[in-house]
Amino acid sequence: MDESALLYVNEGSRLFAGSRRHTSKFAVMGIPMDITSSYRPGSRFAPGAIREAAQFIEFYSIRTGVDVSEFGFDDVGDVILHPSDVELNLRRIRDAATYVLNKGKFLISIGGEHTITTGIVSAMSPEETCVLSFDAHLDLRDEYMGYRYDHACVMRRISELGFKIMEVGNRAVGKDEIEYANTAGIPFITSHQVKLLGPREVSRKVLTHFNGCRNVYVSLDMDAIDPAYAPGVATPEPEGLDPSTILDIMNLIVDQRTVGFDVVEVSPPFDHSGITAILGAKMIFEVAAAVKSKLP
Amino acid sequence: MDESALLYVNEGSRLFAGSRRHTSKFAVMGIPMDITSSYRPGSRFAPGAIREAAQFIEFYSIRTGVDVSEFGFDDVGDVILHPSDVELNLRRIRDAATYVLNKGKFLISIGGEHTITTGIVSAMSPEETCVLSFDAHLDLRDEYMGYRYDHACVMRRISELGFKIMEVGNRAVGKDEIEYANTAGIPFITSHQVKLLGPREVSRKVLTHFNGCRNVYVSLDMDAIDPAYAPGVATPEPEGLDPSTILDIMNLIVDQRTVGFDVVEVSPPFDHSGITAILGAKMIFEVAAAVKSKLP
Amino acid sequence: MDESALLYVNEGSRLFAGSRRHTSKFAVMGIPMDITSSYRPGSRFAPGAIREAAQFIEFYSIRTGVDVSEFGFDDVGDVILHPSDVELNLRRIRDAATYVLNKGKFLISIGGEHTITTGIVSAMSPEETCVLSFDAHLDLRDEYMGYRYDHACVMRRISELGFKIMEVGNRAVGKDEIEYANTAGIPFITSHQVKLLGPREVSRKVLTHFNGCRNVYVSLDMDAIDPAYAPGVATPEPEGLDPSTILDIMNLIVDQRTVGFDVVEVSPPFDHSGITAILGAKMIFEVAAAVKSKLP
Amino acid sequence: MDESALLYVNEGSRLFAGSRRHTSKFAVMGIPMDITSSYRPGSRFAPGAIREAAQFIEFYSIRTGVDVSEFGFDDVGDVILHPSDVELNLRRIRDAATYVLNKGKFLISIGGEHTITTGIVSAMSPEETCVLSFDAHLDLRDEYMGYRYDHACVMRRISELGFKIMEVGNRAVGKDEIEYANTAGIPFITSHQVKLLGPREVSRKVLTHFNGCRNVYVSLDMDAIDPAYAPGVATPEPEGLDPSTILDIMNLIVDQRTVGFDVVEVSPPFDHSGITAILGAKMIFEVAAAVKSKLP
Amino acid sequence: MDESALLYVNEGSRLFAGSRRHTSKFAVMGIPMDITSSYRPGSRFAPGAIREAAQFIEFYSIRTGVDVSEFGFDDVGDVILHPSDVELNLRRIRDAATYVLNKGKFLISIGGEHTITTGIVSAMSPEETCVLSFDAHLDLRDEYMGYRYDHACVMRRISELGFKIMEVGNRAVGKDEIEYANTAGIPFITSHQVKLLGPREVSRKVLTHFNGCRNVYVSLDMDAIDPAYAPGVATPEPEGLDPSTILDIMNLIVDQRTVGFDVVEVSPPFDHSGITAILGAKMIFEVAAAVKSKLP
Amino acid sequence: MDESALLYVNEGSRLFAGSRRHTSKFAVMGIPMDITSSYRPGSRFAPGAIREAAQFIEFYSIRTGVDVSEFGFDDVGDVILHPSDVELNLRRIRDAATYVLNKGKFLISIGGEHTITTGIVSAMSPEETCVLSFDAHLDLRDEYMGYRYDHACVMRRISELGFKIMEVGNRAVGKDEIEYANTAGIPFITSHQVKLLGPREVSRKVLTHFNGCRNVYVSLDMDAIDPAYAPGVATPEPEGLDPSTILDIMNLIVDQRTVGFDVVEVSPPFDHSGITAILGAKMIFEVAAAVKSKLP
Ligand SMILES: [Mn+2]
Ligand SMILES: [Mn+2]
Ligand SMILES: [Mn+2]
Ligand SMILES: [Mn+2]
Ligand SMILES: [Mn+2]
Ligand SMILES: [Mn+2]
Ligand SMILES: [Mn+2]
Ligand SMILES: [Mn+2]
Ligand SMILES: [Mn+2]
Ligand SMILES: [Mn+2]
Ligand SMILES: [Mn+2]
Ligand SMILES: [Mn+2]
Repeated sequence: MDESALLYVNEGSRLFAGSRRHTSKFAVMGIPMDITSSYRPGSRFAPGAIREAAQFIEFYSIRTGVDVSEFGFDDVGDVILHPSDVELNLRRIRDAATYVLNKGKFLISIGGEHTITTGIVSAMSPEETCVLSFDAHLDLRDEYMGYRYDHACVMRRISELGFKIMEVGNRAVGKDEIEYANTAGIPFITSHQVKLLGPREVSRKVLTHFNGCRNVYVSLDMDAIDPAYAPGVATPEPEGLDPSTILDIMNLIVDQRTVGFDVVEVSPPFDHSGITAILGAKMIFEVAAAVKSKLP
Repeated sequence: MDESALLYVNEGSRLFAGSRRHTSKFAVMGIPMDITSSYRPGSRFAPGAIREAAQFIEFYSIRTGVDVSEFGFDDVGDVILHPSDVELNLRRIRDAATYVLNKGKFLISIGGEHTITTGIVSAMSPEETCVLSFDAHLDLRDEYMGYRYDHACVMRRISELGFKIMEVGNRAVGKDEIEYANTAGIPFITSHQVKLLGPREVSRKVLTHFNGCRNVYVSLDMDAIDPAYAPGVATPEPEGLDPSTILDIMNLIVDQRTVGFDVVEVSPPFDHSGITAILGAKMIFEVAAAVKSKLP
Repeated sequence: MDESALLYVNEGSRLFAGSRRHTSKFAVMGIPMDITSSYRPGSRFAPGAIREAAQFIEFYSIRTGVDVSEFGFDDVGDVILHPSDVELNLRRIRDAATYVLNKGKFLISIGGEHTITTGIVSAMSPEETCVLSFDAHLDLRDEYMGYRYDHACVMRRISELGFKIMEVGNRAVGKDEIEYANTAGIPFITSHQVKLLGPREVSRKVLTHFNGCRNVYVSLDMDAIDPAYAPGVATPEPEGLDPSTILDIMNLIVDQRTVGFDVVEVSPPFDHSGITAILGAKMIFEVAAAVKSKLP
Repeated sequence: MDESALLYVNEGSRLFAGSRRHTSKFAVMGIPMDITSSYRPGSRFAPGAIREAAQFIEFYSIRTGVDVSEFGFDDVGDVILHPSDVELNLRRIRDAATYVLNKGKFLISIGGEHTITTGIVSAMSPEETCVLSFDAHLDLRDEYMGYRYDHACVMRRISELGFKIMEVGNRAVGKDEIEYANTAGIPFITSHQVKLLGPREVSRKVLTHFNGCRNVYVSLDMDAIDPAYAPGVATPEPEGLDPSTILDIMNLIVDQRTVGFDVVEVSPPFDHSGITAILGAKMIFEVAAAVKSKLP
Repeated sequence: MDESALLYVNEGSRLFAGSRRHTSKFAVMGIPMDITSSYRPGSRFAPGAIREAAQFIEFYSIRTGVDVSEFGFDDVGDVILHPSDVELNLRRIRDAATYVLNKGKFLISIGGEHTITTGIVSAMSPEETCVLSFDAHLDLRDEYMGYRYDHACVMRRISELGFKIMEVGNRAVGKDEIEYANTAGIPFITSHQVKLLGPREVSRKVLTHFNGCRNVYVSLDMDAIDPAYAPGVATPEPEGLDPSTILDIMNLIVDQRTVGFDVVEVSPPFDHSGITAILGAKMIFEVAAAVKSKLP
Repeated sequence: MDESALLYVNEGSRLFAGSRRHTSKFAVMGIPMDITSSYRPGSRFAPGAIREAAQFIEFYSIRTGVDVSEFGFDDVGDVILHPSDVELNLRRIRDAATYVLNKGKFLISIGGEHTITTGIVSAMSPEETCVLSFDAHLDLRDEYMGYRYDHACVMRRISELGFKIMEVGNRAVGKDEIEYANTAGIPFITSHQVKLLGPREVSRKVLTHFNGCRNVYVSLDMDAIDPAYAPGVATPEPEGLDPSTILDIMNLIVDQRTVGFDVVEVSPPFDHSGITAILGAKMIFEVAAAVKSKLP
């Protein structure tokens, strides 16, 4: 992969699901950026841990009836990152994402901190793309500790870029974030509301809000999930969603419009039993299967 | 804080939620007693771990609409304890609790083993105060291994002091404990019953039983919660409650009568991912927010 | 226990629930075979860890009203195993199981990997015995990596021995396994279906399928349970069952026909908080209580 | 073992080195007392962990040329303990030790906290027995946090009982402890001095001081060893001894006069890699081999 | 502490050694900067972990005969840091260090990554101050991954500021670093050389090189120590020094000229047994004792 | 690498030291066989963990003055293994080793259990090749638990194949192993003797014994190293060697005759701090540097 080497992609890493399928529609890219995590760092190790876990995932998706082994994944490696310059890294991520998307691939990114999503969606058109975020947090702060590209600000930045946004599973939010959401027209469905509404109704609300969107991008901050299921995240927050609820919602939402997906904020040094990395890998398999099942 | 030093309170510990707000109604006190734990010791480290986790909790409570940052907590430090004399320690805890309560504070205690609750409620009037305990166990044994102040006996001792009691979430109980509960008029709602009844009906039963109570004290043995959510406790017991159910019940129960709350039995050496300490801190934030929301 | 020594049983291990009750109907036998685990080895340490956890379990079963301390367990020790010869080990396990069953005991086995169940049921009559398996996987592969006695093939081998089979809680399956199940008449209820149907309906389906069975054997691959509750297993698989659902089903199914039960695939090196071993011990207590409650 | 049951000995624990050899001169007894540990509790789990580790120790001692498998160990089980009454426990330990010593056995005790040594030597005659303690600490405090039977006071209590004492490997000491040692005639060789003097000279000093002793008892607080080799102890203290130095000294000191040995203060919850428990088991094997090599 | 609050110092953290002694010459300041760590992040948790460990350290230094409890420490809290702007943080650190040094205190800093040392020495005069660094690495790179304020460049930046430098314990170095050291006149003594030379000769070399220095600052990157003794560091490197060797050297070097000391690069998430934090705390106690013993 | 795929080599794994240098003389091959481990399994994860650790190793070897980045490593991937058939696997390993050796490469293998060494040396000529083994154990048993290809028998099997052998660092040995060694003319130098003799004298003895050998193969069972430095091994054994001693010996021994090297028995699930994997990676770098420094 000579070209991508110029695009800061390092081939020297374990391949997701055990082999590189150049023909697969589903590209996998690691983005081990781990700079602004305020609580528990370590998401830099997540691409490695999730790739390792993916070696042991069953390829057949019982939920969708899709056999993932029939198409597999095209793991392009990790984006090479600067140790502290977040904004430079966002440009590198944008370039790498552009490269993959231009090949017509569905881009699956493995973070790294949530901030990377700003870089990824920068490769897309704000006019055409809507962004759905599963997250315990709204990430709508204007700045955090004086910094505007903190992981707590990622959806704010994406909103400012002009993307239409919706958020699901939130429960640890600031008052000013709620105000911004209301002002900026960003609907969010808290984890408590998700439990009351159920996956079908949540999906209906998302699809309604994303009605006119040409493309949809989905970001999964793993702290959207309850710490019981995902203890190894940077900022665990009680009262979260269970994984099946998220997969049920995704399965109802993804379709031909969906152009990319990311799994972020997994922190392997705090994932002693490894179940968070396994769950992250599973999420990728199931989303790929769901997308595949909707293709013509 | 010269006075409290005389009351065995050590100032040298991390402050809950990051700063000491002397004017706050909500006092926080660490009680790292860890002597009679029969299974997994380590609750002595819980005040430190829960204070550390509280540094990263969001201040706004979405459940109640209360912004905890508006009032914060008054962390008075840890009670200084004897290494093995439980009964001496209970007197020290009683004195420290009296000191805080006399200032008109709402007392939030962080254990330590469950035995500390005996010391805390000793600072209250049995005639006026009712005690609600969330626990996997009934803690109604007359003695355990020949000892009457074991953590397995705490509600028995409190019952004998004359307090009206109710228990919720129990599932690991002895036959003789059930008999004592029936004889002494202590209703309990097992975790299985809580799941069937739901938070509203459970709360109704508690409020009915506590109808004539002037004051209510709430004790949360973290093993009431399922080990999936709270793995780092002294005595994990399967088939427990989920945190949202407990918070829903608390939110319906606490009101102006509520005078104190404790979180006990967290054991950090067995809490490798830290999610039990984080959950303990969250419980304190949410209970404070709920109490605040009921004040006139 | 001179005789059993000849049967490869090692007395040198911690006794389940703290003492050996020779008169108890419930024999406990450790089978620390841990050879074919493809992902996370360590089930060899499970008999020790589950015995240790059982020291701290409450003896009274609130679900059944049975006081297990009235009869206790007859812990016969561990089967002595060859380090790599699976088929030789299966013969040893068969012989040890025969010895215990011939004494009229209810045989509770603690694995080790799931493969051991083939050895255990070999001590029973395929014509008379039906086998119920709780598992995330179907374990119906003909071979895995070229080997027919892999843990991923255990139910296939048992099926080939002529036993009637049913499976519950499955979600990580291969397409060919589904085909084999359909061909061989092995009904399975996925974890998603279990959640929709509920314990009562699942039990009804099992009882209908096992209608003519004289004996019933139950195998519990702990990965049937969601990783949140059972993180320390060889192959964690998201979207699993919760422990109460499994116990509710078991409680409705076990009766006088039930002749044995096993708990397999717990891997203590990955069970840092110990909650998987505790849950395994609890499962044994509750199954013994349920069986006892159905005896005349 | 009906008699010892009356002596608070519980048979229900894993046997040291895999089988019980009733004829062996070397009795092993677990004493899981874990009450006064001021820092990291958990020594209650050490008898279990050290027995487990001993299953995998090679029986031949290359240092002494003794084949331990020729005689093995007589594991009598664990002393049953009160949850918080240290002084009652010391009497139980004394009685259990007396029972074993009266059978003419060499008594090897596995703690538990260091306090247990007071109970053990209480079964011996102060006039006839000298006590050698390897420890990072002098344990010569008169009281700790107001308590006289704390683990920090164990050698003070033993000194007051009239035993002749010597200490080796100390480095974390109080000024008043040094004064007491000087006043009471208790020589100690710090870890720094041990490194300068070497095993031979240290042994010579010990043998000179113990010249007139009829019996010698050796206590090994595992924190005497450097935390690199023994991380899983209650109170790790840098600049400790390495295990070979201690074994070299012991090998030169033990002889027919030696009547007992203990390994204390191992804390398995902090021994993640298990190397402290393995080292504790090794120490027991080597001391038994050394004693055996000196017998006529 | 109103003033220091303006200096980005947060009072809300556990006090080193249990209480704040305003009159002590020895100020302790936490600097939890953890941004550029290339391998294992987590040094942000080191000030908390080392303060916690310091609660349990014996106050008497046997090496120097100094009783640290006679003067104690003045813990000023943690410097408040920007999440990703290293250079801004270095200015904050410089200002906080200036504030403390201006009070005439001996400044003991707890990192955080090694980069913080640049900030600290910026508060000192390059003409008057010499810097001694214990480190597995030379940290003399011009830039790392394109960044000049990476932790791998710290001594290069300090050298460029004009400070006279010497390094000890190095073993993982780049060829260009050696060339720079030679060109810039920075002598270094590798860990292999330290073992051959011994503490006395190493100290003599340092004292000779620092002959004309008016002030001496000492930085201890904990990875200078072998991973056996200090496993919980950001970049463990085999073949390191043992702690006693470093303390022996320090004890011979520190004197009235010594103005400050730091302990950096401890990473608590990788320090499962806690022995690295304990060792870090011990280093601080011993250096304070050594300095005190040299004061008139 | 189409050919090697036929040789059971899986390309889907992280590359050692970050990139594949096809021209390098030093081939790296993972052999994750983990079947016969009697104590702590998990060596199957060692190739992944050691490759991960190697990403962060400094390329310049200060011991030899060799810059490893000038030539790097040719990582050929992992041998694909049968789950339980050891003898089949040994043939696969032999074939893969033959393939690599035939290319004129120096073969560096990463285990996996020690048994793999039998497979590797089977690709070499017994008449021409001498085998040096660093190990806590002699591995000279005829069989273990009835099995002849257990990891405890590896040097016995290699001896029987006709290879000249020498062993270093042994300390946990059986009496019959010593007898076999004496009979078969296999000299061994225990860890105690190594400490007395020093690296130079040990090397001299090895070189004398291997005087007429045309080729030399070196096997490093990581348990040769003391558990303080290498806690994460399958069978930790106290009183081991320190890493520098082993590297000093290797540096004196390796030369143009040396044809291969392996690092075996690392068990990542027990290597919580990761220092054993880091040390394993370091050993490979230093051996490659030493070999390179001896080439003409
Ligand atoms: Mn986020
Ligand atoms: Mn989030
Ligand atoms: Mn309780
Ligand atoms: Mn409880
Ligand atoms: Mn299975
Ligand atoms: Mn399974
Ligand atoms: Mn002691
Ligand atoms: Mn000690
Ligand atoms: Mn450094
Ligand atoms: Mn360094
Ligand atoms: Mn070996
Ligand atoms: Mn070995």
